[in-house]
Amino acid sequence: MAKIKAGVLGATGAVGQRFIEGLRDHPWFELTSLAASERSAGKKYKEAAKWRLESELPEDFGEITVVNVNPKEVDADVVFSALPADEARKVEPVFAAAGFAVASNASAFRMVADIPLLIPECNHEHLEIIKIQQEQRNWEGYLTTNPNCTTIMFTLALKPLMKFDIESVHMASMQAVSGAGYEGVPSMAILGNIIPYISGEEEKVEEEPQKILGTFDGEKIVFADFSVSASCHRVPVMDGHTEAVWVKMRDNPTPEEVKRAMLDFDPGLGDLPTSPRKALIIRDEFDRPQPRLDRNRGNGMSVTVGRIRSGIRFICMGHNTVRGAAGASILNAELLHKKGML
Amino acid sequence: MAKIKAGVLGATGAVGQRFIEGLRDHPWFELTSLAASERSAGKKYKEAAKWRLESELPEDFGEITVVNVNPKEVDADVVFSALPADEARKVEPVFAAAGFAVASNASAFRMVADIPLLIPECNHEHLEIIKIQQEQRNWEGYLTTNPNCTTIMFTLALKPLMKFDIESVHMASMQAVSGAGYEGVPSMAILGNIIPYISGEEEKVEEEPQKILGTFDGEKIVFADFSVSASCHRVPVMDGHTEAVWVKMRDNPTPEEVKRAMLDFDPGLGDLPTSPRKALIIRDEFDRPQPRLDRNRGNGMSVTVGRIRSGIRFICMGHNTVRGAAGASILNAELLHKKGML
Amino acid sequence: MAKIKAGVLGATGAVGQRFIEGLRDHPWFELTSLAASERSAGKKYKEAAKWRLESELPEDFGEITVVNVNPKEVDADVVFSALPADEARKVEPVFAAAGFAVASNASAFRMVADIPLLIPECNHEHLEIIKIQQEQRNWEGYLTTNPNCTTIMFTLALKPLMKFDIESVHMASMQAVSGAGYEGVPSMAILGNIIPYISGEEEKVEEEPQKILGTFDGEKIVFADFSVSASCHRVPVMDGHTEAVWVKMRDNPTPEEVKRAMLDFDPGLGDLPTSPRKALIIRDEFDRPQPRLDRNRGNGMSVTVGRIRSGIRFICMGHNTVRGAAGASILNAELLHKKGML
Amino acid sequence: MAKIKAGVLGATGAVGQRFIEGLRDHPWFELTSLAASERSAGKKYKEAAKWRLESELPEDFGEITVVNVNPKEVDADVVFSALPADEARKVEPVFAAAGFAVASNASAFRMVADIPLLIPECNHEHLEIIKIQQEQRNWEGYLTTNPNCTTIMFTLALKPLMKFDIESVHMASMQAVSGAGYEGVPSMAILGNIIPYISGEEEKVEEEPQKILGTFDGEKIVFADFSVSASCHRVPVMDGHTEAVWVKMRDNPTPEEVKRAMLDFDPGLGDLPTSPRKALIIRDEFDRPQPRLDRNRGNGMSVTVGRIRSGIRFICMGHNTVRGAAGASILNAELLHKKGML
Repeated sequence: MAKIKAGVLGATGAVGQRFIEGLRDHPWFELTSLAASERSAGKKYKEAAKWRLESELPEDFGEITVVNVNPKEVDADVVFSALPADEARKVEPVFAAAGFAVASNASAFRMVADIPLLIPECNHEHLEIIKIQQEQRNWEGYLTTNPNCTTIMFTLALKPLMKFDIESVHMASMQAVSGAGYEGVPSMAILGNIIPYISGEEEKVEEEPQKILGTFDGEKIVFADFSVSASCHRVPVMDGHTEAVWVKMRDNPTPEEVKRAMLDFDPGLGDLPTSPRKALIIRDEFDRPQPRLDRNRGNGMSVTVGRIRSGIRFICMGHNTVRGAAGASILNAELLHKKGML
Repeated sequence: MAKIKAGVLGATGAVGQRFIEGLRDHPWFELTSLAASERSAGKKYKEAAKWRLESELPEDFGEITVVNVNPKEVDADVVFSALPADEARKVEPVFAAAGFAVASNASAFRMVADIPLLIPECNHEHLEIIKIQQEQRNWEGYLTTNPNCTTIMFTLALKPLMKFDIESVHMASMQAVSGAGYEGVPSMAILGNIIPYISGEEEKVEEEPQKILGTFDGEKIVFADFSVSASCHRVPVMDGHTEAVWVKMRDNPTPEEVKRAMLDFDPGLGDLPTSPRKALIIRDEFDRPQPRLDRNRGNGMSVTVGRIRSGIRFICMGHNTVRGAAGASILNAELLHKKGML
Repeated sequence: MAKIKAGVLGATGAVGQRFIEGLRDHPWFELTSLAASERSAGKKYKEAAKWRLESELPEDFGEITVVNVNPKEVDADVVFSALPADEARKVEPVFAAAGFAVASNASAFRMVADIPLLIPECNHEHLEIIKIQQEQRNWEGYLTTNPNCTTIMFTLALKPLMKFDIESVHMASMQAVSGAGYEGVPSMAILGNIIPYISGEEEKVEEEPQKILGTFDGEKIVFADFSVSASCHRVPVMDGHTEAVWVKMRDNPTPEEVKRAMLDFDPGLGDLPTSPRKALIIRDEFDRPQPRLDRNRGNGMSVTVGRIRSGIRFICMGHNTVRGAAGASILNAELLHKKGML
Repeated sequence: MAKIKAGVLGATGAVGQRFIEGLRDHPWFELTSLAASERSAGKKYKEAAKWRLESELPEDFGEITVVNVNPKEVDADVVFSALPADEARKVEPVFAAAGFAVASNASAFRMVADIPLLIPECNHEHLEIIKIQQEQRNWEGYLTTNPNCTTIMFTLALKPLMKFDIESVHMASMQAVSGAGYEGVPSMAILGNIIPYISGEEEKVEEEPQKILGTFDGEKIVFADFSVSASCHRVPVMDGHTEAVWVKMRDNPTPEEVKRAMLDFDPGLGDLPTSPRKALIIRDEFDRPQPRLDRNRGNGMSVTVGRIRSGIRFICMGHNTVRGAAGASILNAELLHKKGML
């Protein structure tokens, strides 16, 4: 079977590099197009981008000539967008109109009513809204998004708790520097320090989960009925967002019931190549999860939960640029393919 | 006026060193006695202890001969205890019985009914209970304690909010490694990492504030009526505990009212040498407090608060081994002196 | 073919865990015995040891019952020693006498005349001395050692330069905290700091290379004739020792000639499972090697060299607990097997 | 006596802020003018600059209106330049021509023959060349420079060794991130990592010491006759450059003689306000100097030396943005004032 042709928009940045890493040796997708800003277009990728990941840049990808972020220059069936929100807002609809399936990591369209905000393990049925999206907008292609990197971790952990009728969530995050991009956090700002603020983060985290955990009623997504109050902090950690979560549930489950619900959580996506064996890993040690030790579980796609205790309180942690960004978009695209939409 | 003679119990450890630092050039207290374990007793302090602080060990203190933690060997009016809880439990009552005023940083007796758990800015009137303590126990001296280092920061911030009728508190801490003592956190555990657990910490943090913010009714301390739910985490920061706090108050004040109450907070302790000009510093910047930038405010004795926002949520931060340990005990002793109890 | 039975002495510590990691799925060796101190003996490994590595402890290894460091309790053909030097000095000869092949990472016997100090890529012919060792000592088994972790990196880089007649070496190391063991470096000592001293390190580094790069004359190892002057420093890096090296050579090669010699270096050990495709990787970028990016090259067994410039100066870097410890011993044992000595 | 009016060029950056910090409460200089780029000019300093230091920005300085880097807008007798080299090259001569005494931290003119490259403790007699500079260039004012931050530390330590006839120096540096400016080193580049390269640094370090330690023969500075070979590395340390130094001397002194020479070093500048009591501090502990513990000695103006051992080898360390930048320029200006040149 011929592979599906995949492009990356914004291929030179930190998330763009994670897309490339995630697409090497992919069984379904073949990386055919790397698009970036004018400054990079026309150069070989290895000359346009300084490769920052611990894994080596695959040699053949390094030889690809970077093109402009323009549907006419991009040769692909599906495009993964690592564009900044501003640029995504302008460009992604153009790609969708031109017939591309767009799997975006950008925040620009996440909260737009007819655009699905996907975590495949949580709300794959929201894909139904794409028909409405295409009709309304007269697009040949379509646009899907994945959530903010901080949203994903605790929202995945909340999914199996929905049956206990969630009322409210408090969440304090300790976020890795890679979430801000390569130049995002100067070392002078964060060495031996904490910055108790991340621009726009709390706002995203407080509205995205209700859409993701909402239900599609045939016409629109009805948001889940709970509140989120967040406090977001940057810490001197390279990769892996750690989150302290309190969940108030109207059914008042015990910690054991919460743990059981998480252990039993099986989203049935084992046939997607990027899907981890376990979306949620529950650890019993008193001092886990830890970002350095747990972020690469499930090839960076598992969220690890620990310290489930009365409150209900727990800690969850996942790899912010894999599960929280590039891996999320790729998993979305795999879901699209499984549903016959690519 | 002759200075009051002060001793330090457990003088060689991380907090012991902070006591010595806090007592150099003290206007009221004169360091006369350094006590530590048998291994150190008999040696000059500079040979018994490896000095770890950025400030230099005062030369004359280095020449003091370390004695055993034994009332017969300690020449002092007031002793500051930096002992571990186990040892404190055995030894501090012996010192109190022998006529010493004991200002302890240990956790052993904090929650005992007739022993005051002091933050001078919060509950100096709890000192009244010492009379009862001395009568009941037939002690010549007496015992006072200061709270856990994490408790102190947010409890100070809660004090001016008591008038809004606090109902519950959620608190996620990001705690510095110095809180665990010099050998407490291996670098392999914490470099680029977070440990979402600190032994015994959440328990202390969840019960101490209600005692501190309680009222002395003439016979006993009546605990304040609110709940605390905590999640405590170790981060790669040298000094300074940062805390994300949510406070639910029955009077439902606005963020502006909360800020105003904090700004107006004046505990009237300006005459105590270690008292900072402002116990609470309120910062308006969107990204403060930060431990590296703010921990030394008020010579390490101020707690800095920022990001007061709806929720009510805010961030508070203070120096854990100064305001949260040695400085706390010294301030307590200064209060004792002011009250004529030394 | 039946696998060779392998045991690990000192299996619970940091290097012991790297041995276990290196032996999982090994094509030639089967881990059959884990030995550690009395405190651990009798327990399941997963209960005796707190697993600290990012990779998971293989489940079946966790079930192995730990035995004492005693030849009578260890069931193996070859034992890998991660013992501290003091213990190694007592115990390793007992194992060698009892017929075991001992591949030791300890420093105890490295400089003893009849015991080979091996880097397979440098001096596999030194194995000849084992016959003399066995005769002299009347041992059924034998003892081999690998060098200090800091020695290995630059000595591997020096090997292809021997033809230029090395006269002297200056080396400044920037060493990772994992080299000191899990509890070796407190975070309070190293966060945002450098410690310009590592006990015993400079001494080892200044005498081991001459033995390794010496020649076996049929009776003894004749040391190479050059001097090493070292300055060793601990830095806040988890894994990977970085070394700034100056090499004075009597033949005065150009940087290009030095680079060519390193590129051409082919020790011909490609058939050993742990041998990396390239023992030396030469990078042309101006800012490499870097420990975070390059330590895992060749599964942690390659040494990466960069910035070869006039002087002759260069930077070399390798993974200190893999290439510099456990991986080194395993590679030695693979060499023994290839030579028919197991 | 009226204070000398002082301006800062490039006042908003990391070194500019250190200048402001060094000039607060200065007994001789009064900060009268803050100049920065067009983007900042016209704003109050506190609005133009985000203050990054742990000490608070003095309130009255925050109210100063920033002016352009233009002699007509700057009201000062002496100007301190924290400009980048490119800009310094254009602007500093204009200030010198216009009659200002310019004390520059920039690299632009350090190696120019008629411009002194000063460390007051090393070569105050080089100030004589300023007459020649003014004649040749027809300047009313004049230009002095201080060395690169890495140069200063080991050159100060070499000064008392000049009597042993230095032949060559090898130096490996471990440099703090603050040396690159606030945005200079992304956290993703340096957390848990080392970057073995700093642009242009080795070149500077290899030519500046010979000028500084050279002699003024009445007409020109005759460079000292020794070679320097450097390897410069960035490490995850906030402030403080640590340097491993080897010095080959023709007179072949013992480590004790070297130590004695350093201890006896007294440049006789005790009357300069910024001069530390000891320019060189010699420590006997086996593990010092350490940047976190020693960088603030002498208010950041002392260089601490340790581990003097055969080779001759030693470690030296100093505060890179104080002794190595702003403090260096201020000390130069104090020397100018002492010599009656302001």
